[in-house]
Amino acid sequence: MIALSLVGIGSGNPDHLTLQAIKTLEAADLILLPRKGDEKSDLADLRRGIVAEVLQTAPKVVEFDYPVRDAKTPKYLDGVNTWHDALAKIWSGLIHDHSGSDAHVALMVWGDPSLYDSTLRIADRLKAQGLQIDVQVVPGITSLQMLTAAHAIPLNDLGAPVIITTGRQLRDHGWPLGADTVAVMLDGECSFQHLSDAQQIDIWWGGYVGMPQQVLRAGLLAEISDDIIQTRAEARAENGWIMDIYLMRKRAD
Amino acid sequence: MIALSLVGIGSGNPDHLTLQAIKTLEAADLILLPRKGDEKSDLADLRRGIVAEVLQTAPKVVEFDYPVRDAKTPKYLDGVNTWHDALAKIWSGLIHDHSGSDAHVALMVWGDPSLYDSTLRIADRLKAQGLQIDVQVVPGITSLQMLTAAHAIPLNDLGAPVIITTGRQLRDHGWPLGADTVAVMLDGECSFQHLSDAQQIDIWWGGYVGMPQQVLRAGLLAEISDDIIQTRAEARAENGWIMDIYLMRKRAD
Ligand SMILES: C[S@@+](CC[C@H](N)C(=O)[O-])C[C@H]1O[C@@H](n2cnc3c(N)ncnc32)[C@H](O)[C@@H]1O
Ligand SMILES: C[S@@+](CC[C@H](N)C(=O)[O-])C[C@H]1O[C@@H](n2cnc3c(N)ncnc32)[C@H](O)[C@@H]1O
Repeated sequence: MIALSLVGIGSGNPDHLTLQAIKTLEAADLILLPRKGDEKSDLADLRRGIVAEVLQTAPKVVEFDYPVRDAKTPKYLDGVNTWHDALAKIWSGLIHDHSGSDAHVALMVWGDPSLYDSTLRIADRLKAQGLQIDVQVVPGITSLQMLTAAHAIPLNDLGAPVIITTGRQLRDHGWPLGADTVAVMLDGECSFQHLSDAQQIDIWWGGYVGMPQQVLRAGLLAEISDDIIQTRAEARAENGWIMDIYLMRKRAD
Repeated sequence: MIALSLVGIGSGNPDHLTLQAIKTLEAADLILLPRKGDEKSDLADLRRGIVAEVLQTAPKVVEFDYPVRDAKTPKYLDGVNTWHDALAKIWSGLIHDHSGSDAHVALMVWGDPSLYDSTLRIADRLKAQGLQIDVQVVPGITSLQMLTAAHAIPLNDLGAPVIITTGRQLRDHGWPLGADTVAVMLDGECSFQHLSDAQQIDIWWGGYVGMPQQVLRAGLLAEISDDIIQTRAEARAENGWIMDIYLMRKRAD
């Protein structure tokens, strides 16, 4: 039986690691460390830094490249599923080549493994392929928590609901029903710019939250939408990549 | 200028602390430590344990009692606001009595300070009262993350939205529009039992998540609703208190 630990490492700073994350990584026999292509080498460097500087013991580390996702596959979900299958094959190959059949293997997961992340789904595929694995999840600080912390704001209004969604959902369906507070992740297109009530919406935006390059903006959407779009484009050009996230709240009428 | 750090400590286990939380608490001049009444002395003990066992340096700690919330105040929000005012007065009194005017004061906050927690709102009241404070938020692992980790499940379906809400909202408004996944907190009444589509809803429930008493249940709501209600009642009777949380997902038609 392989013990597979999916370890949330927080969103950009080794100080986000929990004691549980550190202990779990230290106890592993093998750490699989993804490289995600050039633009995200900062993130691979961060993972390497954690192993080199935070862990007291140095487990065996094997780096691997992510397969390229086929954006041409007609249906979005099919593309994702094929990609998860490819990743599951890579993982099981690496586990087979580099560890015994009862090893403790760990993967460092950006933020928290529960939030818009594919590692749990890939682990399920390993099980479906017949691999005997016992999956343990170690929570990590999400980028959404880094955003609210950086702005020192609550996620929710008093006793009120919150929706967490994606840029794609916001573009396809507009402002979601049922909540005055909406957090948006995975948005490559500043989808807030298409909302109609920009005079009634406050936005708290953050790029590279928790990282040295962190950049924040907050204000009335109607007033700062353009500034965010421009700031994002410039930061992206400068760093070669960007990850950003935002929270919006509708003002009470 | 008082530096006030609101430090998320996770949900029940000192191992949830991040390095940033530990460093921030160690650097504080004064830690204000709430006692919340008898039934929650386990939680105060956990905070004392963090100071005694995790921190390398021992800042000054002042314990204080929570004012009792007036459930008789007619409007729910008024009751909460009065209660926040009372807490703000207690904090400013303690800060005044026990630290200089440029001290670094820290408060340990259950889970993450952004999520259904009042400390950020109380800090705002201190500012409104004219106290010069600079608020810093240190994120912590939420009970929702502990729940998904304990069950080893993702929070969201692939690319899909999630609603985080309260028991009261679920009772008053039923299943929220706009998401197939709903996380429910602050529910003293097992409000899932009033939902009509129990044959179509999977539930993952957890009491005392991340704590030694942790108890988990998962299954089709129609099948395990009664079991959860009974398990919760028994655990509550045994421990004298309970905190529980759950995630529900509607099956695709
Ligand atoms: C694939 S999801 C992974 C989320 C991660 N599991 C978490 O818990 O934050 C990637 C998205 O998270 C957000 N994100 C992650 N890290 C971020 C950061 N440091 N700053 C801003 N947004 C970030 C962005 O919205 C990005 O599109
Ligand atoms: C006032 S809110 C505080 C939430 C906290 N800030 C967090 O980040 O989890 C209290 C609610 O959180 C949930 N909760 C907190 N700790 C929990 C635990 N250890 N197990 C289950 N639920 C918990 C329960 O729903 C409880 O009613």
